[in-house]
This record gives sequence, C-alpha cells and structure tokens, in this order.
Amino acid sequence: MGTAPAPDSPPTGKQPRTERGRRTLRRLLDAAAEEFGEKGFHEGSISGITQRAGVALGSFYTYFDSKDAIFRELVHDLSARVGSEARSALSGDLRPLEAEQAALTAFLTFARDHKEIYRIIDEAEFVDPASFRQHYETTAARIHERLRQGAREGELRDDLTEAHAWAIMGMNVFLGLKYAVLSDDKPVEDIAAIANSILQHGIGKTGTE
Amino acid sequence: MGTAPAPDSPPTGKQPRTERGRRTLRRLLDAAAEEFGEKGFHEGSISGITQRAGVALGSFYTYFDSKDAIFRELVHDLSARVGSEARSALSGDLRPLEAEQAALTAFLTFARDHKEIYRIIDEAEFVDPASFRQHYETTAARIHERLRQGAREGELRDDLTEAHAWAIMGMNVFLGLKYAVLSDDKPVEDIAAIANSILQHGIGKTGTE
Repeated sequence: MGTAPAPDSPPTGKQPRTERGRRTLRRLLDAAAEEFGEKGFHEGSISGITQRAGVALGSFYTYFDSKDAIFRELVHDLSARVGSEARSALSGDLRPLEAEQAALTAFLTFARDHKEIYRIIDEAEFVDPASFRQHYETTAARIHERLRQGAREGELRDDLTEAHAWAIMGMNVFLGLKYAVLSDDKPVEDIAAIANSILQHGIGKTGTE
Repeated sequence: MGTAPAPDSPPTGKQPRTERGRRTLRRLLDAAAEEFGEKGFHEGSISGITQRAGVALGSFYTYFDSKDAIFRELVHDLSARVGSEARSALSGDLRPLEAEQAALTAFLTFARDHKEIYRIIDEAEFVDPASFRQHYETTAARIHERLRQGAREGELRDDLTEAHAWAIMGMNVFLGLKYAVLSDDKPVEDIAAIANSILQHGIGKTGTE
C-alpha cells in the first residue's frame, strides 16, 4: 500500500505547474467535496463543480478527464488530509497512548468540519472500490506503525498486529459517524477520552480480570 | 429505536398468512440479498430477484410494492439476523467479556457466509438512510445493554456509555470488513481473541499504565 499521496501530487489528475494552477485545482477539489457531499456521485455533475468553484467548464478538463477522475482524486485528497491532520496532532513529545488520543481528537474535529467525508468515502465503496480499500489500508498501516513505535519505546504490548490497528481504526471511524456526523453536541475531547480509556485499561472492572 | 423487527414480521412488506407464503417471502429476501449483493441497488431488478427465487413476477407484488420496499425489508432482515446470531451465541453461562468474544465470533462467521451484507448495509446509507441508521442504533443499543448487564454483575466498569458501545461496534464492523470480506484466511476465533484482548487489558504494556 505505502503511504497516502500528498495532497499536491494527484495520482489521477494532471499536475498543475503554476501556483495559480494549484489554487484552481484546490478550488475544484473543494467544490467537488461540496457537490458530491450534497448530491452524491450519480446526481453530482461537472458543471455543478465548476459553478461552485467559479471556474470555466472548459478549464475543468485542464485538470481532470472525467467526473470519475475528480471523484477518485477527491477520495485520495480526503484520505491524505485525514493523514496529515493526524500527523500534525502528533507533533510534540506524546507518549504512545496520548498520541492515539490526540490523533482521534484531530480526526473528530476534522470530521465535524467536513461531515461530507463520510458520504464521499462510503460512496467510494461503490464508485471506486480500489480507492475505498486503499484509504482504509493506508490508515490502518499508519496506526499499525504508531503501535509498533509504541512497542519499541516499551510502552505498548509487543504483540500488536494489523488486526489491532483495524480494530482501533473501526472504533475511531464509528465514533466519528456517531459523534461528528449523526450528532455533534458532545465535546470531541470527551469522546476521544472514552476511546482512550478502552485502549488504556479495557472495559473490565479494575482488578477483576 | 427499540429492538430490531423479527425476521418474520416485515415492517414494510405484506405479512403472509400461510406457511407457503412465508417460504416464498423468505426465498424472495434471499434472492434479493444475492441480486443486490452482486449488482447493487441501482443495477438490481425485481425480475432479477424473482428469477433467482423461482417465483412468478406477478407474485412479487403480493409481498412488496416496489424495489425500494424489498430493499428496505432486506436491510431490516439482515439487521435482525445479525442480532439473532449474536443472541444465540450468548446462550449458556458466559461471563461478560466472554459474551463479547462469542458475539464477535458469531458475527464474523455470519459475515463470511454472507459477505453481501456489507455491500447491502453500506449501500443503505444512500438508498435508505433511515434503515442504515436504525441498523447501527439498534446494534449499539444491544451492545450497550450487554455492557450494563456486565456492570450490574460487577464484572465490567460502571461508567460504560453509549459511546463505549459504538466504539466496540466499530471495532467489530471493521474487523469483519478486513477479515471476513476483504480477506478470509485467518480463523475467526483468532480475530475475536485479538479484539477481546483489547477489551480485557487495553494495548498498554501490563503494569506500565
């Protein structure tokens, strides 16, 4: 799988060479997130995207060949942004469990500000299954690498596998679905603390295991 | 939210009065799971369903008014079957953490035998959002009730909330996605044991918390 593509190196779009071109590409991707987030892939249209972006219809094709191409690029872009949100939350000198809590807090904050991310990535399961799978494989690989780092530092268990990473990712995704998308009245810090208490102690009564 | 409807009392279909009618309804739902699982909702058709079921096209309308109606009923049916798989795994005298492990093992086994359940429930997010939400609200409520029961028995923490239930559900759903749908070569018991080790102890090195 490797790492997620950086936001400025689209795997499917055409790479702009100027600063102005990069700004236009960014506007198109933000407009595509709105268009597909509101209408879904099938109802969404290239003209809807260019209108939202304030870009001429013809200019769209400077960057993308088709509606499929910009959707695919958008999934990669959102996936990369989830990754960079997590990474920037990890700057500083956090212990491994603090790092998981910081990463989840950052993800929940991002998901509240970009609720459309769920609809878009979930729809990728049908529109672009390879990108859907890559998003989760990449995210799980990032979590797994943090777990291994925590084990090397002697703070986390030595037996943490890919399956532990998928379990933690699932926890985070569903807490985002419930507390960023379906409702958003609870502080994200409280939700992240709840997830972290499971990772710290499990759910058993202390001392009864 | 309440409890999931029983498989034989469809909320949207027309209730058959005879044993033969119930068998035909069951055949239609199983055929719909195949049809929508393979083709998706939009490409799937009523005639595709009746052909798979070996039922005359006209008979379909004895049970359902539309493709939307049978899809909605199918989501409720699959949701109820996930619930009844979990419940039957819980018969016996299991301690609370053993119960979570048994429920997950049953779910992973069911998901391997019915891989189409992911595609169908995920597509409900777009085709029938109310049923999508109800499935997860109902499943989380069932997990939350088990957690409260475990706390009453003095084995689980007293502070377990709806958010803990959503976290556990997310873990289970993503382990199913990874180890029942995307791959299926690892024993389900091993995967369920990994999830359970998180619920038992967390991921910290013992004694270093």
